[in-house]
Amino acid sequence: MSEPSEPAPAVDLNSDVGESFGRWRLGDDEAMLGLVTSANVACGFHAGDPTTLRRCCEVAAARGVVVGAQVGYRDLAGFGRRFVDYAPGELSDDVTYQLGALAGMARVAGTRVAYVKPHGALYNTAVHDAGQAQAVVDAVRAFDPGLPVLGLPGSELLRRAAAAGLRAVPEAFADRGYRPDGTLVARSEPGALLEDPDVVAARVLRLVTDGTVTAADGTEVSVAAESVCLHGDTPGAVAMAERVRAVLDDAGVAVRAFVGG
Amino acid sequence: MSEPSEPAPAVDLNSDVGESFGRWRLGDDEAMLGLVTSANVACGFHAGDPTTLRRCCEVAAARGVVVGAQVGYRDLAGFGRRFVDYAPGELSDDVTYQLGALAGMARVAGTRVAYVKPHGALYNTAVHDAGQAQAVVDAVRAFDPGLPVLGLPGSELLRRAAAAGLRAVPEAFADRGYRPDGTLVARSEPGALLEDPDVVAARVLRLVTDGTVTAADGTEVSVAAESVCLHGDTPGAVAMAERVRAVLDDAGVAVRAFVGG
Amino acid sequence: MSEPSEPAPAVDLNSDVGESFGRWRLGDDEAMLGLVTSANVACGFHAGDPTTLRRCCEVAAARGVVVGAQVGYRDLAGFGRRFVDYAPGELSDDVTYQLGALAGMARVAGTRVAYVKPHGALYNTAVHDAGQAQAVVDAVRAFDPGLPVLGLPGSELLRRAAAAGLRAVPEAFADRGYRPDGTLVARSEPGALLEDPDVVAARVLRLVTDGTVTAADGTEVSVAAESVCLHGDTPGAVAMAERVRAVLDDAGVAVRAFVGG
Amino acid sequence: MSEPSEPAPAVDLNSDVGESFGRWRLGDDEAMLGLVTSANVACGFHAGDPTTLRRCCEVAAARGVVVGAQVGYRDLAGFGRRFVDYAPGELSDDVTYQLGALAGMARVAGTRVAYVKPHGALYNTAVHDAGQAQAVVDAVRAFDPGLPVLGLPGSELLRRAAAAGLRAVPEAFADRGYRPDGTLVARSEPGALLEDPDVVAARVLRLVTDGTVTAADGTEVSVAAESVCLHGDTPGAVAMAERVRAVLDDAGVAVRAFVGG
Repeated sequence: MSEPSEPAPAVDLNSDVGESFGRWRLGDDEAMLGLVTSANVACGFHAGDPTTLRRCCEVAAARGVVVGAQVGYRDLAGFGRRFVDYAPGELSDDVTYQLGALAGMARVAGTRVAYVKPHGALYNTAVHDAGQAQAVVDAVRAFDPGLPVLGLPGSELLRRAAAAGLRAVPEAFADRGYRPDGTLVARSEPGALLEDPDVVAARVLRLVTDGTVTAADGTEVSVAAESVCLHGDTPGAVAMAERVRAVLDDAGVAVRAFVGG
Repeated sequence: MSEPSEPAPAVDLNSDVGESFGRWRLGDDEAMLGLVTSANVACGFHAGDPTTLRRCCEVAAARGVVVGAQVGYRDLAGFGRRFVDYAPGELSDDVTYQLGALAGMARVAGTRVAYVKPHGALYNTAVHDAGQAQAVVDAVRAFDPGLPVLGLPGSELLRRAAAAGLRAVPEAFADRGYRPDGTLVARSEPGALLEDPDVVAARVLRLVTDGTVTAADGTEVSVAAESVCLHGDTPGAVAMAERVRAVLDDAGVAVRAFVGG
Repeated sequence: MSEPSEPAPAVDLNSDVGESFGRWRLGDDEAMLGLVTSANVACGFHAGDPTTLRRCCEVAAARGVVVGAQVGYRDLAGFGRRFVDYAPGELSDDVTYQLGALAGMARVAGTRVAYVKPHGALYNTAVHDAGQAQAVVDAVRAFDPGLPVLGLPGSELLRRAAAAGLRAVPEAFADRGYRPDGTLVARSEPGALLEDPDVVAARVLRLVTDGTVTAADGTEVSVAAESVCLHGDTPGAVAMAERVRAVLDDAGVAVRAFVGG
Repeated sequence: MSEPSEPAPAVDLNSDVGESFGRWRLGDDEAMLGLVTSANVACGFHAGDPTTLRRCCEVAAARGVVVGAQVGYRDLAGFGRRFVDYAPGELSDDVTYQLGALAGMARVAGTRVAYVKPHGALYNTAVHDAGQAQAVVDAVRAFDPGLPVLGLPGSELLRRAAAAGLRAVPEAFADRGYRPDGTLVARSEPGALLEDPDVVAARVLRLVTDGTVTAADGTEVSVAAESVCLHGDTPGAVAMAERVRAVLDDAGVAVRAFVGG
């Protein structure tokens, strides 16, 4: 995350893509891949059929968007959003399988998997669950220790990634409410989700230039993030991403991938 | 396939492994990996959970057995044995996904995917169906043009693999009956399956040293094969493989992988 | 199918619903269930998670729409649109399983499965494939011989259903082009799909009142149908269904289910 | 559970069956269905393809064994043994779907689903988790309030089943160690599993005639059970079941189903 005093602040924008499956479409990958710099591409366990994944990788490659592996639980029916009590070894193996599979799709599309971001319930579980966090880290390190891991600042996942010698990349969420302690407002509580594109874009700009965000109670919270996550699967997602991108571009913020950035 | 006049004939032995799934065990991978030189490891679509695949690759690596990707249809319930009328592009993508996934498991196990062999109904379809055969070839070539393809002599798959610049490796079947024209006796007909280990071992030896096999009607058939497939999932499979291996060893046949052999 | 001379012609309108799966939505079931009289509810094998199925059945029950079981191949990734070469016995068992499952969801929703219509590739295969057609018929008869089977006029499926003592209900397609022989124009050919709601509605009205449809070459074709299928998963599907329904209502055609109609 | 003073004590024996899936076999259903009086038949979500389920139901019907629905999480790869954090409504719908599906297979096999027993992690979760226990109960009551629920004595599941007006049937485990408080020794601890058929058979006999079992620490524990669960998927399972059955028969204990018993 850039310092406020730097002449040219920079940030990465990431979003989930590749979450269609067979006949079912989800999100507008084409549009989002024109706005973000890092694409969290699904890997087939929570979403993403192989043809969708290859196409996503091809579009990402054509637009210079960095491809990350959005690994998740093996749970198509639950879209990877339900906690599954994996044994750590089995979770590592499931993560490795997904990393390899997406790496294959990326290879034939002329690009490569350049980072890893857990999806859904695995993301949330790896914030606090040492076993699952370590299982993800073990899989990444064994597969390719050069792959950064993208996650929540202060999470067990990022701590263990760093301890294992992996690059740990903290991210912020453009449209989520924050608590005074820097954690996110739970989805079940009021203020969890911000919907006004102008408000969201202004928050992202302050986050990038000042490193702060206004919490739900008005407190100013310091948030260190190298990437900002934009949701891609909600109505209005593309419009909000366009607004964020436009505001950053207008402010002279360099929007570029954290990998090789 | 070695010439009869050579002082030291050689052959590769291959077998399907990694076909367990979760709670369900199939075959004795440990035993078979002590007898063959090439392992057709399932890739998760017709069989093979990630933990099984990693373990198989680890055992193969420890024993110097070459790992091949046994790619199949996405059909766990049918074990990849039912023809599925894929569009060629979708089949290519499904094959690429499986190649990448197994490559990932092989990488963390300290080995690599070194060849490709289609499984079940995909194997049988690629014998005669130009679209599916080409789809497999396209996927292999795009993923890694250095990967040989293992298949039935004279099949559409091997013709197209060769035409695409891939190494096409013909195989014979140790325990299957042959027709006078060199094709296999259909499983529904008498003589399709040979069950006596001594008979099977003697056939394999003649196949390797003379390049011939006795067909169901007594005709001598010329069969050019660089590898011989041993089944691993039937009762008595290990005993038969042990007998074949012992007879070859006793006869001074070098049993070694066709990859790097 | 009503005769042109009858004072009050009547027809059933059917549409596919319940084809969402987990996070993925498909079609506007709520809207379609306000327009049709028979709902082909998916059964979980090609589409349809249990929660979607229950809700569909509840809405259908609330609106007096008859529930049919839209049985398909076990192929979520292919949405049941790829031919799968099932053994007949296994296909019967898969159909029975789906019939039972949807019957369970219908029961808790206060309604029942009242007919059966195969989906996608199974529908198309059962037009001409005696083995798969008979497998579907066998499953329906064993499960409940009182269930009618909805299908293409002249199909193997309807012939065998009738021969087995089941009620065989022929249907027409509102927005598909017809050949002079009464079969459908293949989707790959021009004229396969009609997109103008007014044209489609007028065709349906003539079909219902005259029993004829104009084929792609201008020929008048006689089409005997007790139900007309409206597609629900395309853009504009609801608007087209509304137009068809309005034109039928205006013309005094009684739109009512073929079951209990 | 019968009192020791009764002239003819009786007990039900139950076991899991139908847990094969496609090519993968698990357990010896034929043999177990000759020894038990209640069969917990898998329903397809953790195990059990439709053909396996139908055959199981047919064998059960032929032998007068009562069929129960062994409902589980949608997790083939984990065999339903991993906790999945379902929303209660989705769990209810998944249970209903499975009840209906097995009811369909039972119907064509000439029998019916006569009770419900959760499987694996759902069984264990429903011991203490009010939400999941209630979700199972809600599904059973909505599907058929006449179906008994089989579970652990003192579990949340049986409490809520009884509160909902369902028959709650407590079971004991033939080969599991007990703690002094009547709960089971965890599988990770010593004494969790008893392997000597004679010891197990003697324990079952005392359980049936005295209503007591000797805990791991030597304490006599009172266990009220209307059914005793025999495992069917371990090596030696059939031999142990045969021994238990023989000892009960020799002692004059009536082995009969708790449903209609």
